[in-house]
Amino acid sequence: MPHCDQVTNASTPGNAGTVVVLTIALDGETPVLAAGRRYAEHAMVMSHQAFEPHVAVPRLLDLLAAYSVPATFFIPGFAAERSPAMVEAVLAAGHEVAHHSYSHRPPTSLSEADDRREFERGLEALDRFGITPAGYRAPMWSASWRTPELVREYGMIYDSSLMDDDKAYVLQTSHGDLAEIPPHWSLDDWEQYAYLPAPHLGYHINNPLAVSAMWTSELAATRRYGGTFVLTGHGFLSGRAGRIEGLRQFIESALEFGDVKFRNAYDVACAALSDVATERKKHERVDVDSAIYPDW
Amino acid sequence: MPHCDQVTNASTPGNAGTVVVLTIALDGETPVLAAGRRYAEHAMVMSHQAFEPHVAVPRLLDLLAAYSVPATFFIPGFAAERSPAMVEAVLAAGHEVAHHSYSHRPPTSLSEADDRREFERGLEALDRFGITPAGYRAPMWSASWRTPELVREYGMIYDSSLMDDDKAYVLQTSHGDLAEIPPHWSLDDWEQYAYLPAPHLGYHINNPLAVSAMWTSELAATRRYGGTFVLTGHGFLSGRAGRIEGLRQFIESALEFGDVKFRNAYDVACAALSDVATERKKHERVDVDSAIYPDW
Amino acid sequence: MPHCDQVTNASTPGNAGTVVVLTIALDGETPVLAAGRRYAEHAMVMSHQAFEPHVAVPRLLDLLAAYSVPATFFIPGFAAERSPAMVEAVLAAGHEVAHHSYSHRPPTSLSEADDRREFERGLEALDRFGITPAGYRAPMWSASWRTPELVREYGMIYDSSLMDDDKAYVLQTSHGDLAEIPPHWSLDDWEQYAYLPAPHLGYHINNPLAVSAMWTSELAATRRYGGTFVLTGHGFLSGRAGRIEGLRQFIESALEFGDVKFRNAYDVACAALSDVATERKKHERVDVDSAIYPDW
Amino acid sequence: MPHCDQVTNASTPGNAGTVVVLTIALDGETPVLAAGRRYAEHAMVMSHQAFEPHVAVPRLLDLLAAYSVPATFFIPGFAAERSPAMVEAVLAAGHEVAHHSYSHRPPTSLSEADDRREFERGLEALDRFGITPAGYRAPMWSASWRTPELVREYGMIYDSSLMDDDKAYVLQTSHGDLAEIPPHWSLDDWEQYAYLPAPHLGYHINNPLAVSAMWTSELAATRRYGGTFVLTGHGFLSGRAGRIEGLRQFIESALEFGDVKFRNAYDVACAALSDVATERKKHERVDVDSAIYPDW
Repeated sequence: MPHCDQVTNASTPGNAGTVVVLTIALDGETPVLAAGRRYAEHAMVMSHQAFEPHVAVPRLLDLLAAYSVPATFFIPGFAAERSPAMVEAVLAAGHEVAHHSYSHRPPTSLSEADDRREFERGLEALDRFGITPAGYRAPMWSASWRTPELVREYGMIYDSSLMDDDKAYVLQTSHGDLAEIPPHWSLDDWEQYAYLPAPHLGYHINNPLAVSAMWTSELAATRRYGGTFVLTGHGFLSGRAGRIEGLRQFIESALEFGDVKFRNAYDVACAALSDVATERKKHERVDVDSAIYPDW
Repeated sequence: MPHCDQVTNASTPGNAGTVVVLTIALDGETPVLAAGRRYAEHAMVMSHQAFEPHVAVPRLLDLLAAYSVPATFFIPGFAAERSPAMVEAVLAAGHEVAHHSYSHRPPTSLSEADDRREFERGLEALDRFGITPAGYRAPMWSASWRTPELVREYGMIYDSSLMDDDKAYVLQTSHGDLAEIPPHWSLDDWEQYAYLPAPHLGYHINNPLAVSAMWTSELAATRRYGGTFVLTGHGFLSGRAGRIEGLRQFIESALEFGDVKFRNAYDVACAALSDVATERKKHERVDVDSAIYPDW
Repeated sequence: MPHCDQVTNASTPGNAGTVVVLTIALDGETPVLAAGRRYAEHAMVMSHQAFEPHVAVPRLLDLLAAYSVPATFFIPGFAAERSPAMVEAVLAAGHEVAHHSYSHRPPTSLSEADDRREFERGLEALDRFGITPAGYRAPMWSASWRTPELVREYGMIYDSSLMDDDKAYVLQTSHGDLAEIPPHWSLDDWEQYAYLPAPHLGYHINNPLAVSAMWTSELAATRRYGGTFVLTGHGFLSGRAGRIEGLRQFIESALEFGDVKFRNAYDVACAALSDVATERKKHERVDVDSAIYPDW
Repeated sequence: MPHCDQVTNASTPGNAGTVVVLTIALDGETPVLAAGRRYAEHAMVMSHQAFEPHVAVPRLLDLLAAYSVPATFFIPGFAAERSPAMVEAVLAAGHEVAHHSYSHRPPTSLSEADDRREFERGLEALDRFGITPAGYRAPMWSASWRTPELVREYGMIYDSSLMDDDKAYVLQTSHGDLAEIPPHWSLDDWEQYAYLPAPHLGYHINNPLAVSAMWTSELAATRRYGGTFVLTGHGFLSGRAGRIEGLRQFIESALEFGDVKFRNAYDVACAALSDVATERKKHERVDVDSAIYPDW
């Protein structure tokens, strides 16, 4: 089970500054297959995803190395099995690999049994690389209420799927405390770059320089209000040449602020859990009156 | 029943300048639940909405305080019951709270009986905070012809759902006069920032600085043509750090014009009702020939 | 029947320069009712359209007067009947009014009998104002192959619905020659500004200053390649304050080119028909093999 | 069968610089008819496509001639048959014409028999112009796994439909080696300019100057990372005046880099095939467990 041996310096007192967490999903073919098994027959669609292990990941690792910036890679078990060399390369570069399900099917669409199987099969796939992941992110962030419970039950110490804050906090589950490292749609490359008509991943093609300018001003705002800046990328999207340049520009702008630190999710989780000043929350489910909201 | 004791200075003669009305909906989980009760099981979706009371509202109140700018908060009864501390904080900051239905289901989709229940249950929820709202806004602005009648019947003096003008006017109902404070899609943060795939709230993620620039030039146009500048925000959208900065930029630009005044909806309604120069309208329903428009 | 008495100077030889045709649809409630009669019950939707006769048209007429610029207004019969004062104001300002169907239902969705009834009822509605329209535009530009035939049969001399050119040309029908004044999606305000979820008119809210900059560079390109610059606006969209300012900016930029002339569609049609150098076309329908394109 | 007689200089050693391949689809009415035969009755929709042979192609050829830039035109057989003069004009200007199916129906939606018929009928249509195409691109890039096999079987030496790289590579099929010249959505004009509601081609209208700026920065990134810059245009989209100017601006910016060369797809294919340093790939189909991805 992952544990936090040394006090990390992600956000401990006396160590001011905003923390940026680069989280990069390496989904491979999984988001496409989760939309329909038939897409395995579509060579173009498969090739669109295969760009990731072959071209995108080496490029992303080079970029991170050039600026000595750590990242957390969320890799579904299916993608890890299909591209073991990719996983090895990420590990060799010293980055964190975390749990991102086995097949990229959203927990909200699964039975409890299937949900558990996804957790276990994903862990088994990572285990073959010697990885005991410290954290989890739900596919499409589609966590159910069961999700944080399972994350803790299966021995992980953080989740990164929920959006009720923009600062890492401690979530109290029936299995113990968990750090929540909250993502958001506005800091995700999918909403900027995903373009695929069938399956419909999105109709987004933005100028990477405009995206990097937007994220930089978002980071400036985070510096003003405090919080954990959790950026989400996807290998098959952000590994394209122009988008790598956009990411480079963002990293350079972030470093130019002078007080911005890049940390992986594990370090941020440990810092949040060990800091008594971190907010502690319990989730309260909404009690819904079926007379008022009758539609299922 | 709300009444206008003192002549307000929102747009009285001899008091030139353009009036900006900041209207902020605090919908909480209601727009999501109105799209389907099943979303109560989606922890991420619920957390996406829960950002509002916990993080967004304090931030919005701080921003308004920093510029001494009043706002009108439209709060569905369900959201008020779920986050009483949020309502108290808005009241403590001296802002207006107005009626925004109970459950955020659009009047156009409700029977007359359900529509009345929504009005009453929403009023009851606000009454528990000692609030007698002066005005109403339909969820998603989806007013039916019954809506202005109900607003006046239930003792409110303004509505803010209709778009046939860009200047506050007096609407004559069978229960008496009502001020209409017209909103518009182009001055709403939803169309700029709402991104949620399921339920589908929108696919919008614009750069807050571009949004503030657009709204500032819209305000410049309103200064030229006259009118009431009714801006609409939503806590869970505009309370994010970067968007708060966009709103700050808009407020600063508005104040820099020198002749722009911020007023809440109540003040604008009283000024409109008490000013004989305000346009008086009666709505004429369209008489539709079913031979020409056969489809229901 | 409309005829061209005097040689117009829209694009006659020796009269160089690019011609801009401002075409403005005043659809009123028709596009919404054509999407479903039930929307007549939606007060907000109806008010969204009612902005046009009450606020937008006076503002548009003022703008055109300020720059002495002519325009062609396409008005469905239903909208003319509902807002006679609006039609009178357009006529009093000296602008052309042209045929835009009766109910804004697309010809491609109508039987031949209904198509004819639309043509006739639209003509009757305009006739009550003493208007004998010189031209026609199909609702949503959705012309069928029957459309140009009907336009000529009913005595009009131009159509403005087809997109196979960006220069006015002569279309030979079985009833005689017709001028075609081609519009295009890229020069239409609908694709920039239409935002209404139900009925779904679009999700477009662009910055009017960006729109005017885009149209200005499109006009610069038309000056380079030749052609007729046919801009399409809609009262309920472009009559909003910020968009009026966008349109003003476009008009000013166009006039600054020095060699750009504004003409109405009638003048352009007469010039095209009387100029032997105008291209003459006959439409050739596509002969489609149902073995290759089996789906209807 | 096409062969590569002379060593081309597209990307041979000692010949540094980035290669731009301008690929232009001349689809005519085919994408619209493939969406439904009924659209043959829609005069506006047909005219929207008819802009291509009559106006767009001459303009595109002039532009290419002005900068002495070669291009590869992908023309479906149906479009070639309908506009023979267009094909002749492309050939007379010295450009490459390549295979783009017969009817623009995607291979992924066809039976093997229909897929073969499309290949053959498309080849026959081009053969009437004396064209033996060297390469193929699937309609909508919707290649199936059968596609590269068929391309090689029918004697062509390159495909341009797959996205697993951004550099031309060699794809090993059971019929021999093939060059793959990979396109991408982000370098396609469809995602910038296609606007047609029915059939729904897209809702895209971007400013051509913004598009050219984006593509120029993408090209700058390709210069940094290496790769083949494959730009895709469509006659009926990019032949509009403003977009031609956007394309001109891109070409000028590309030439200003000093080390960018324009080559047609044939030259790039020959260079890739003859260069031992070119990456060789075999596609590995994904083995999908139907227990995990049960939905078809």
